[in-house]
Amino acid sequence: MLLVLTSALFAFSPQSVTSRLNRSALRTPAQQVVMATQDELKKLAGYKAVDDYVRSGMVVGLGTGSTAAFAVERVGMKLKSGELKDIIAIPTSVRTKEQAEALGIPLVTLGTHSDLDVAIDGADAVDPRLNLIKGGGGALLREKMVEVCAKKFIVIVDDTKLCAGLGPSFPLPVEITPFCWEHTLRKVAACPAAAGCEAKLRLGSAATGSKVDGTDPAVTDNDNYIVDLFFKQPIADPVALAAQLKATVGVVDHGLFCGMTTACIIAGKDGISVQTP
Amino acid sequence: MLLVLTSALFAFSPQSVTSRLNRSALRTPAQQVVMATQDELKKLAGYKAVDDYVRSGMVVGLGTGSTAAFAVERVGMKLKSGELKDIIAIPTSVRTKEQAEALGIPLVTLGTHSDLDVAIDGADAVDPRLNLIKGGGGALLREKMVEVCAKKFIVIVDDTKLCAGLGPSFPLPVEITPFCWEHTLRKVAACPAAAGCEAKLRLGSAATGSKVDGTDPAVTDNDNYIVDLFFKQPIADPVALAAQLKATVGVVDHGLFCGMTTACIIAGKDGISVQTP
Repeated sequence: MLLVLTSALFAFSPQSVTSRLNRSALRTPAQQVVMATQDELKKLAGYKAVDDYVRSGMVVGLGTGSTAAFAVERVGMKLKSGELKDIIAIPTSVRTKEQAEALGIPLVTLGTHSDLDVAIDGADAVDPRLNLIKGGGGALLREKMVEVCAKKFIVIVDDTKLCAGLGPSFPLPVEITPFCWEHTLRKVAACPAAAGCEAKLRLGSAATGSKVDGTDPAVTDNDNYIVDLFFKQPIADPVALAAQLKATVGVVDHGLFCGMTTACIIAGKDGISVQTP
Repeated sequence: MLLVLTSALFAFSPQSVTSRLNRSALRTPAQQVVMATQDELKKLAGYKAVDDYVRSGMVVGLGTGSTAAFAVERVGMKLKSGELKDIIAIPTSVRTKEQAEALGIPLVTLGTHSDLDVAIDGADAVDPRLNLIKGGGGALLREKMVEVCAKKFIVIVDDTKLCAGLGPSFPLPVEITPFCWEHTLRKVAACPAAAGCEAKLRLGSAATGSKVDGTDPAVTDNDNYIVDLFFKQPIADPVALAAQLKATVGVVDHGLFCGMTTACIIAGKDGISVQTP
């Protein structure tokens, strides 16, 4: 289901949602969409995720990244205004934890709360079935731990993340144990459903994605390494690849999030659209 | 296939194999078997694994533990005598590495050699299909990485390790990432094929198995934690449980080794027997 929202989105309350939009762009819906910046649209997507899916009393997973940060901001705003009550949240990163703390959002961890009502996060690539690649920032394991436990998983992205097939637009990260990583890299690359990929150990900082900014292996929050799989052709069967990767001895987890998305809210130059699987 | 060996085993060469056996026990095969100590039988099993499955030019995985140590000893002995040549070995632990180095066995790692001709190791529990529980010593991941790559995997145990069904005789270790371990422990215990188990975080040293010798979580060589699953009833479907555990987000690997065993050499009070699946 594809639902394109334009003027309707700009009408949602409270006023603060649109207060930072270019005032000159507020004359007509068509003009608003044309003139809103990418950041403003990301904000609308992040806010819409909270407005549509977060209700008082919920346990909420808070994602990481430039779009997810707007969702966190919106939760804080609605708690402060009293529009939301009794929210407890589980952050997927230290950065999100700090942002949520600063906004006064009550936080817990999976250690005490294994069941979430909803999780909201960004993605690095989204295919037409709403399968995702995540983990450019190196936090795929913690994100997956949180989001796989949510009754609803809402993905918020700008439209540059959409692709016809996962792989070519963003390398697939695979988190592996450091011990004999060269061996595990070869085993990962040899997964039948990964045929044709080029596998490279991520160097430098784990958070830089596949951009090399150092000569030492990047180390994740869990003290593991990351192998990035580069594809020239779309991954034909992401579900099969996900299973093959996870089943590989030495693999901790991977950035394929298949069959998890409840809805994807997309910020594009033509406005906000919502897709469901 | 069950093949019980008694007198034949005691005839294999070289003489040194039996030289430490109680001399008074060497009159007749029946007497030998009765009077050989458990350690002497473990030695025979370890030696037999090398004699039957290791040939010159092979890449050999060397296991860890009291029985496997005899196999390592045997490889060193045969290299020294010239009976074996051009062996390179991959140890599964620091302890085995040190033993092999002291014996002059050339060593490599999985980093350079992903394909092994044979691996020889012990196990903590063996069922009638030769599915195994391993990892009492906390090294299950490195052992599995090596042994899953071997064309032949030879298991050597004393007969106290045999069981009608895996589980009750030895707790099943599961290696998990430390982040929110309480959550992952609950998810592991909730695997359908683990129904009825009691899950406990391993405390103290990882190498002590389920015996608690401290109050802090045990940490593996890979900086992970271990959850031990205690079963009162045999695990009904070890293959299903293995898949469910590995597929759990936060699980790195587990101690079920299913469908991997080529042959199991068993040292018992009645002598040495060999089982194949």
